[in-house]
Amino acid sequence: MLHAIIMAGGSGTRFWPASRAALPKQLLALAGSRTLLQETSDRLVGLVPPERTLVVTSARLLDAARAQLPGLPAASFVGEPCKRDTAPCIGLAALLVSRHDPDAVMAVMPSDHVIGPIDRFQAALRQAAALVAATPGRLVTFGIRPTYPAESFGYIQQGVALPREPGDAPAHAVARFKEKPPATVAAEYLAAGTYLWNAGIFVWRADTILAALAARQPECLERLRTIVDAWDGPRRDEVFAAEFAAIRGISIDYAILEHAADVAVIEAPFSWDDLGGWSAVARQRGADGRGNTIVGRHLGIDTTGTIVQAADDHLVVTLGLEDMLVVHTPDATLVADRAHEEAVRKVVAELEQRGWHDWL
Amino acid sequence: MLHAIIMAGGSGTRFWPASRAALPKQLLALAGSRTLLQETSDRLVGLVPPERTLVVTSARLLDAARAQLPGLPAASFVGEPCKRDTAPCIGLAALLVSRHDPDAVMAVMPSDHVIGPIDRFQAALRQAAALVAATPGRLVTFGIRPTYPAESFGYIQQGVALPREPGDAPAHAVARFKEKPPATVAAEYLAAGTYLWNAGIFVWRADTILAALAARQPECLERLRTIVDAWDGPRRDEVFAAEFAAIRGISIDYAILEHAADVAVIEAPFSWDDLGGWSAVARQRGADGRGNTIVGRHLGIDTTGTIVQAADDHLVVTLGLEDMLVVHTPDATLVADRAHEEAVRKVVAELEQRGWHDWL
Repeated sequence: MLHAIIMAGGSGTRFWPASRAALPKQLLALAGSRTLLQETSDRLVGLVPPERTLVVTSARLLDAARAQLPGLPAASFVGEPCKRDTAPCIGLAALLVSRHDPDAVMAVMPSDHVIGPIDRFQAALRQAAALVAATPGRLVTFGIRPTYPAESFGYIQQGVALPREPGDAPAHAVARFKEKPPATVAAEYLAAGTYLWNAGIFVWRADTILAALAARQPECLERLRTIVDAWDGPRRDEVFAAEFAAIRGISIDYAILEHAADVAVIEAPFSWDDLGGWSAVARQRGADGRGNTIVGRHLGIDTTGTIVQAADDHLVVTLGLEDMLVVHTPDATLVADRAHEEAVRKVVAELEQRGWHDWL
Repeated sequence: MLHAIIMAGGSGTRFWPASRAALPKQLLALAGSRTLLQETSDRLVGLVPPERTLVVTSARLLDAARAQLPGLPAASFVGEPCKRDTAPCIGLAALLVSRHDPDAVMAVMPSDHVIGPIDRFQAALRQAAALVAATPGRLVTFGIRPTYPAESFGYIQQGVALPREPGDAPAHAVARFKEKPPATVAAEYLAAGTYLWNAGIFVWRADTILAALAARQPECLERLRTIVDAWDGPRRDEVFAAEFAAIRGISIDYAILEHAADVAVIEAPFSWDDLGGWSAVARQRGADGRGNTIVGRHLGIDTTGTIVQAADDHLVVTLGLEDMLVVHTPDATLVADRAHEEAVRKVVAELEQRGWHDWL
């Protein structure tokens, strides 16, 4: 039985002022008319039913996440009391789905990527589930064929090819996981042709990942078990808050994947964009004849290569702009040179430092 | 008796979106904490009392103008039912002040310039009034010593020097008025040293300008007399609307000054800026160490030479900006390269063409 675990606890700062602490990237309709979280859920329709879907977010985003996905039962949402990276999140989800389905297979996925088309995504998950069914102790990851020497992604080195059925995507044993590399190393990876970007999407049996956690993160798993033991009782929130806070945050990659014996990687047959900033949004939405990407009411005069996003019916007029970014929200506006896009995160840090919490 | 006529009917488009049809430049606090209209009125304190001050604006700005100048009696405000340039405006004012003061001397001034200091301005008006007292038929204008070959101002060529008292500013007979020149001609004027910018400030006896209008614009004056005859009666608004609309709009320069025999020009001993755009605002307000001029809540990262104005407590963040202009208002935001500042007027034209009247 395939279960879906949607990780929706991120708090990105690259899309400020559109994204805020209370409304992070995954809750925004950055690439289309549906939010990234909604698109992540839409992508599972026909493959995983609502009752086998779990959305793990942060406690303060719980209401917003539920409101965006009214088709999922309320029990499908878990609000983490604090951030502890992906290993505790996935361990908790594995325990929860195992309660009623000891043979559960989990497809774990972020909620803030742009992926398509749906049929290829679902076919890839089915292929991963088949790889797990063939070798139950296997952990399956997804890799993206690199298109440029990215420094911002982890890489997966492909090892020996695994047998595959006609129509399947290429699948290999993982030779090694590689952390985010410097540019020269990334260029070598790209040239080698055997390194894929780690998409952060995983498929495995719940009992496999729990056994791995028992071996490598026993204290974490112990605390997660304490939480799940209290899950249906009156002290759930209290126990969740205390035990989860006591766990050391660690990613599933560091905690388990890099040490596991049998990890496979499927080269994603779907398109993938982690939407790392406004230029990625423009890439997804497309540009008009002047290279402008516009959301909202806009008048552009002598404006090219510019991204404009305006909320409500606020009018943004741009005059003589080239390769700029203008993001208007009701209480804050960002105007940036697109060449400085990476520095948008600095804005949030600076607002925190100034104590301008109203705009965070 | 010196009367002040403040012309406040302008509808500038250079400051959109801060300025709007219902809130033009003169009603904005562009250069300081008081609006330009308020500063114009402040500049008269001690020289012309409220009951001898007349503010001529457009009918739809009447309430706003009154609200900004609570120290003036309600009867000090005249709201023109339509735009007819300066000659009808000044003719009407001359008739109104003549009703109770046949010897009235009028100081006519725009409401949207930045002038200082007050004592030098008042001294210059007194000098002008003295020139008129010495030769009652004389029309006195003010000229500004050019600092660059401006194409956007009319020029006044100085003729023979007039006698002056110690402490007086240089005063000359006007040799000739010159329309806005092309750059090469403006450069010649600048080099010649005998051409001044026409500041649009005038001092003369009301009966002198009325006699001139009677000679050169008899139909205009006739209609103005009809309006003033109805001024204190029940049909004032109706007659004002009908007769004023029937007048041909013409500037006092074209209608009278260019043809008058005895016109003097005083070289302004005060500083003067017609505040022709946002860069002029920055010049008046001054810039910080990075060349930025900021009004409102702003966070700048790698930002230089940039003007930011934000309304209310809206936060504007600029990132990687150089010589840009960002003007935020509750319903519209302008982002422009300062090199394109002249084209701000195009925005208003384009909004009109699109029928986006809500933002005009």
